[in-house]
Amino acid sequence: MALIQTPEVQRLRRIRQLGVGHLVFPGAEHTRFNHALGALALMHDALTSLSNKGTPISPEEHTAALAAALLHDVGHGAFSHTLEHELIQDFHHEAMSRVLLVHLNNRFDGALDDAIAIFDGTYERPWMHQLVSSQLDMDRLDYLRRDAFYTGVAEGEVGVQRLIKTLRVHPLAGGPDARLTVEGKGIYAVENFLISRRLMYWQVYLHKTVLAGDRVLHAALRRARRHLRAGSEVARTIRQGSRSLCFFLEHAITADQLDTEAVRTHYCQLDDTDVLFSLKQWMQAEDPVLADLARRFINRDFFRVTFLGDAPGTAQQEAWAATVRRWLLDEGLSTRDTVEDDLPFYLHVDRSRHAAYATNHDPIAILDRSGALRELSEMADTASIAGLDDTVVKPYVSYPKSAGVVIDEASG
Amino acid sequence: MALIQTPEVQRLRRIRQLGVGHLVFPGAEHTRFNHALGALALMHDALTSLSNKGTPISPEEHTAALAAALLHDVGHGAFSHTLEHELIQDFHHEAMSRVLLVHLNNRFDGALDDAIAIFDGTYERPWMHQLVSSQLDMDRLDYLRRDAFYTGVAEGEVGVQRLIKTLRVHPLAGGPDARLTVEGKGIYAVENFLISRRLMYWQVYLHKTVLAGDRVLHAALRRARRHLRAGSEVARTIRQGSRSLCFFLEHAITADQLDTEAVRTHYCQLDDTDVLFSLKQWMQAEDPVLADLARRFINRDFFRVTFLGDAPGTAQQEAWAATVRRWLLDEGLSTRDTVEDDLPFYLHVDRSRHAAYATNHDPIAILDRSGALRELSEMADTASIAGLDDTVVKPYVSYPKSAGVVIDEASG
Amino acid sequence: MALIQTPEVQRLRRIRQLGVGHLVFPGAEHTRFNHALGALALMHDALTSLSNKGTPISPEEHTAALAAALLHDVGHGAFSHTLEHELIQDFHHEAMSRVLLVHLNNRFDGALDDAIAIFDGTYERPWMHQLVSSQLDMDRLDYLRRDAFYTGVAEGEVGVQRLIKTLRVHPLAGGPDARLTVEGKGIYAVENFLISRRLMYWQVYLHKTVLAGDRVLHAALRRARRHLRAGSEVARTIRQGSRSLCFFLEHAITADQLDTEAVRTHYCQLDDTDVLFSLKQWMQAEDPVLADLARRFINRDFFRVTFLGDAPGTAQQEAWAATVRRWLLDEGLSTRDTVEDDLPFYLHVDRSRHAAYATNHDPIAILDRSGALRELSEMADTASIAGLDDTVVKPYVSYPKSAGVVIDEASG
Amino acid sequence: MALIQTPEVQRLRRIRQLGVGHLVFPGAEHTRFNHALGALALMHDALTSLSNKGTPISPEEHTAALAAALLHDVGHGAFSHTLEHELIQDFHHEAMSRVLLVHLNNRFDGALDDAIAIFDGTYERPWMHQLVSSQLDMDRLDYLRRDAFYTGVAEGEVGVQRLIKTLRVHPLAGGPDARLTVEGKGIYAVENFLISRRLMYWQVYLHKTVLAGDRVLHAALRRARRHLRAGSEVARTIRQGSRSLCFFLEHAITADQLDTEAVRTHYCQLDDTDVLFSLKQWMQAEDPVLADLARRFINRDFFRVTFLGDAPGTAQQEAWAATVRRWLLDEGLSTRDTVEDDLPFYLHVDRSRHAAYATNHDPIAILDRSGALRELSEMADTASIAGLDDTVVKPYVSYPKSAGVVIDEASG
Repeated sequence: MALIQTPEVQRLRRIRQLGVGHLVFPGAEHTRFNHALGALALMHDALTSLSNKGTPISPEEHTAALAAALLHDVGHGAFSHTLEHELIQDFHHEAMSRVLLVHLNNRFDGALDDAIAIFDGTYERPWMHQLVSSQLDMDRLDYLRRDAFYTGVAEGEVGVQRLIKTLRVHPLAGGPDARLTVEGKGIYAVENFLISRRLMYWQVYLHKTVLAGDRVLHAALRRARRHLRAGSEVARTIRQGSRSLCFFLEHAITADQLDTEAVRTHYCQLDDTDVLFSLKQWMQAEDPVLADLARRFINRDFFRVTFLGDAPGTAQQEAWAATVRRWLLDEGLSTRDTVEDDLPFYLHVDRSRHAAYATNHDPIAILDRSGALRELSEMADTASIAGLDDTVVKPYVSYPKSAGVVIDEASG
Repeated sequence: MALIQTPEVQRLRRIRQLGVGHLVFPGAEHTRFNHALGALALMHDALTSLSNKGTPISPEEHTAALAAALLHDVGHGAFSHTLEHELIQDFHHEAMSRVLLVHLNNRFDGALDDAIAIFDGTYERPWMHQLVSSQLDMDRLDYLRRDAFYTGVAEGEVGVQRLIKTLRVHPLAGGPDARLTVEGKGIYAVENFLISRRLMYWQVYLHKTVLAGDRVLHAALRRARRHLRAGSEVARTIRQGSRSLCFFLEHAITADQLDTEAVRTHYCQLDDTDVLFSLKQWMQAEDPVLADLARRFINRDFFRVTFLGDAPGTAQQEAWAATVRRWLLDEGLSTRDTVEDDLPFYLHVDRSRHAAYATNHDPIAILDRSGALRELSEMADTASIAGLDDTVVKPYVSYPKSAGVVIDEASG
Repeated sequence: MALIQTPEVQRLRRIRQLGVGHLVFPGAEHTRFNHALGALALMHDALTSLSNKGTPISPEEHTAALAAALLHDVGHGAFSHTLEHELIQDFHHEAMSRVLLVHLNNRFDGALDDAIAIFDGTYERPWMHQLVSSQLDMDRLDYLRRDAFYTGVAEGEVGVQRLIKTLRVHPLAGGPDARLTVEGKGIYAVENFLISRRLMYWQVYLHKTVLAGDRVLHAALRRARRHLRAGSEVARTIRQGSRSLCFFLEHAITADQLDTEAVRTHYCQLDDTDVLFSLKQWMQAEDPVLADLARRFINRDFFRVTFLGDAPGTAQQEAWAATVRRWLLDEGLSTRDTVEDDLPFYLHVDRSRHAAYATNHDPIAILDRSGALRELSEMADTASIAGLDDTVVKPYVSYPKSAGVVIDEASG
Repeated sequence: MALIQTPEVQRLRRIRQLGVGHLVFPGAEHTRFNHALGALALMHDALTSLSNKGTPISPEEHTAALAAALLHDVGHGAFSHTLEHELIQDFHHEAMSRVLLVHLNNRFDGALDDAIAIFDGTYERPWMHQLVSSQLDMDRLDYLRRDAFYTGVAEGEVGVQRLIKTLRVHPLAGGPDARLTVEGKGIYAVENFLISRRLMYWQVYLHKTVLAGDRVLHAALRRARRHLRAGSEVARTIRQGSRSLCFFLEHAITADQLDTEAVRTHYCQLDDTDVLFSLKQWMQAEDPVLADLARRFINRDFFRVTFLGDAPGTAQQEAWAATVRRWLLDEGLSTRDTVEDDLPFYLHVDRSRHAAYATNHDPIAILDRSGALRELSEMADTASIAGLDDTVVKPYVSYPKSAGVVIDEASG
């Protein structure tokens, strides 16, 4: 496929799938390029299986669906989930994927028309969109198995091939109302998939050291942005890093500007190497806070993150703040004048949240023996699936390890 | 270890772990001997880890616990879960394990005293019994990973080594109240273990073709027993099979006779080869029903099992019975005189049941950060664990594939 | 495929692939049934790949080749490589496979005509026979990867799928001269395959404890045969074992009788369970030697095997014999009258031999870039391949561990 | 270990183990950091095993050997094997490792004295050096299994744990003459290791597309160096890339300058991100050749490499040169004035070479049963090992795919 050779897709080779995750799970260096190829391969397997079961799929549709699977994430940026919102307000990577799809389509003389329709959900066969984007799409199936494999987290392992073999278009012949379903015998494989995904969120994607790394990176970029916008002395050093990164930090780009030439070009030039290279330069910055944050990221000297039983009260937060302020002064990172401004770069209260399965929004449909469709949690023989519908929220606080912050009632 | 070389343990080499399971999952030929060694290895890992954390374990205790792990299942019989209750009324394999433990102990001059106390739960450190027998014991950890590996059922894969690393005796120093707990960070691994076990039950241990194979085997043995007890002509052919098997079929052995010389000796001589060898002989029996049942098992021509939404009503059952009666006559297996008697060997209504986790009976204790013990489902951040407490019941019916039985409302 | 459901193929479920190997490598319980299915699956992969490359294969040929792959080893007997020659003089399992193929063909009304021609090498496309039987056939590819997997011997692992992808019929279009070749890029995969096979021979198939187990089994059967033929008292006990096994021990069956009704029937009734069941009965035999040999096999108390630098001289052998004679008398296994007769059941000198690759007989053909065919060792960039052509011979002696036999110059 | 947290070791996280290999084998994104940790882990296993066998190892020696294993490769640079010689004349990464070891030793107040002695081979127990650097060291064992795993090349798989278990210090008690040996039973594992390493060289490390990627990278850096040294206009754009990279390109650094402040600092700041970031900038260079070479590397549009049967003659080379010159003009990359100068950036004749095992230089010693040491190839039961001693040489040529170069006699 010529698409794989495009600069837009090759760029994904330089973006790690798990952002800072490889700094916590040493084997997890895999890239978004690997994942895009994996999603494409699973899409091929799924289409072949559905076709063998009796749902007609034309060669053109097959190709279009492969392209949609390959390109569904092409809009992801450097250190994606960590940075995207830092760089562009109200960003959704799907919107950037769509911008790039349209540009590729122009370059390929409209060959991606159907792929775009499938991506958008406007193609005449809605189940093809479900293969690209739903609670059981090829994207999720691939990243879950891939991330579990490379992190070595056994809880994330999923029998992907078997799951794909239980997919079925219903009714078989297709038609505008046909949708993607799972045959009854696949219900346990789906249950395992949902549980595995839940466990991967809490053990990998929202692992406390991953959150800690995210936090350092956010702080460094915010600090750099402040200098760039203020036009301070330090800005010169900052500009020795990546120009494309500086472009996004300096200008307040919003999601409605994605399709301008400048934004698109700089976005495509930006990958993990820009961020890492820039941070290495910033270690020499005249601002001790920026230099410290950059050094912390490069040398993996992250903050500490502690999960909390409940959201912390004002008194608690003020006590932590007092401790960190004192530490900033002792370390020579802040002066009395700057310490209040510097505080939020080092002390941060936030919360993680994750819902494993939405029973209401595009739920997974199980096809029972009688040929009826039923929602997954209704069909399951246990109350466990229904229990996955709740959003689990975990407050946490991040702070420098050596600051002497004392956490009561921690439960993480 | 000299124990491994005893005939009692070597006999486990001739008993497959999954009974008829290897006839459904072609790679699952592994034996109870493999499992016993695996439980021993995990016990070693667990004791080493607990000791490294600061719980003193003497070399004698270490050896006793290894012996208990190795021998915990030594009382299992040929095609264990399928046949045990057929051969001995009110049988529990733990009782037979204990009988054999005592005999081995005599032979080894009392060297197994502590192992027996650990097995019984009377040893002064109750957590050692929990390692041998509890909802999170080395037995379950080993059979789950082993069965998942050899059947290839991805849903059963568990991160056993990591789970073991999160075990902890609390309080650390031991004492009579100390018990086995899981550190807070292991809660997701435990959750995954329970879900995996649940999924293995429904996908492997209670798989419908496994139930079908069980049914054929039961029927053949019951038929043989009837002839042996009636002293019929056919009994001579039956006796060309294994004498030890005939011993159990002929006499109504009950659980309180386990420790008699005859029962113990015949029990130890009986393994899978006796059953298979006998069935091969019985294929030549003058009773067409016995010959048919034996042939069905040997050539893997099982009944069909269908799971039912609800327990079937009388009318439904009578309709099935009429169909199977007609088929028995047509096939020449029964005459008008015998068909009513023969029917239960070919048509059987039953139900599978499994509870994934008992919150009330010796529940899994999680040690939170503050050092408090909490029951697993209470500590979990989702309602899913609590949902595992219910016993799931699935009615089913088994019948010959070619009999023309019609099942309405089936949902399996 | 209906063939899989035949008693002939289902019988392979009761014959372990590695004979006594599972007593040395605890996980290696896999059966000839698993292997037959595996060879069938690889044949399917190979045919699909060859067809994709441009060699036309009709659906009938595809099916015939699958059948030939499935059934190529159907003639293997219980504890195959150990016992076949003990039971039938001049036996080759291929000859028995052919007998069974012909009988199955009659039962299936000639549906196996082409499969038999492929098996025989008389089919008009000789490369199809090479897929079933050659130095790079599906049989070898499957058993190597399977045995390496289940024994856990890393040295045996082979990239089977990649190897299959490098196979090519040359010339592509077929024709009577077309033969199976390996594309140049596959040469390293072939080299690895040959080395792996060599290492598996010395580490698994000819492992000294495997040879020791073989030896005990041979001795027990020879002893039983002697009693049966002599019509001794002991023969009654021996006959409590399997009748089919006794049939072969009692009569001096030769390879030219394979297609007689009695031989075929008994052969098909004989599997591993007959041998194990019989040995368990023979543990009670009145002949202490037979009882001891049977017990040794069942309880895995094998002889010791020691490899020797050179074939032992007469003096050396006589010294060993004297030691073992004394031991037989001390143990009460022999009397002064019988000890000379009993000696060969306990002391045995033999040699293992294996050649990893034959450059002369149907060698592996590599297709170079210019389209020319060259023999593998000639094409290789190292002298290592040529070095595999020699037959390696290793003399060894087997004897009871406790007999006090002293071996000088041992080098194993 | 505090060593792992040093910037010198954390820097290895930003250097991929296989240089351009990840552009050929998509999963092979693993880094030198992963490998360093792996070598440390294997060293721990080896020391534990040797100690269990009876060779006394003090806790201090254990720690020193771990440090030596961790740091043995700390001197590797960005895109190591590809670039090191491009950046520093006569470079050996061991020399740079030693420079960094000494600096770390100063920082850790001499704690690495013994580690350095082990690294140098001057420690009183020479076998400890053999564990760090020999034909069977922890470095080779780890990279082989790691690279095989991540590339998915089955031919490289090695039973590392078993191999380590067969290592033995001889004589056991140590002493100044004691050396590292392999017990006789490990000879097949060693044989497999050597063959696997040989196959990994030709299938991975010297894969033709890997060579092609190396070639593009070399050409781009040489081109940049020429501009920097000439002080051309283009140099300004080049300097928008990494300063540390430019430092090495601009100055003719030689191996005897490794321990100067400037060289050491720039070397430690240089990692894969510098190279990638720089090449992305150079895609905008005013020199069309540099821009083209940079683009080729970033977008993975490599040259083609073809292996040749023999080193090409002058006429052959001149024919290729004429073709590439024409292509350079047609593409607008060169003018008539520059084409001769530009040619070597696009056409390159070279050869790969590899010897799998040196029988003369520090050969692998096997300990036979009689307690005598013998060299591996002498002890092997096949001529194959001796065949590994030869250096295999393969000439090749690299050129742009679209240039129309015609290769006769190719054999790769």
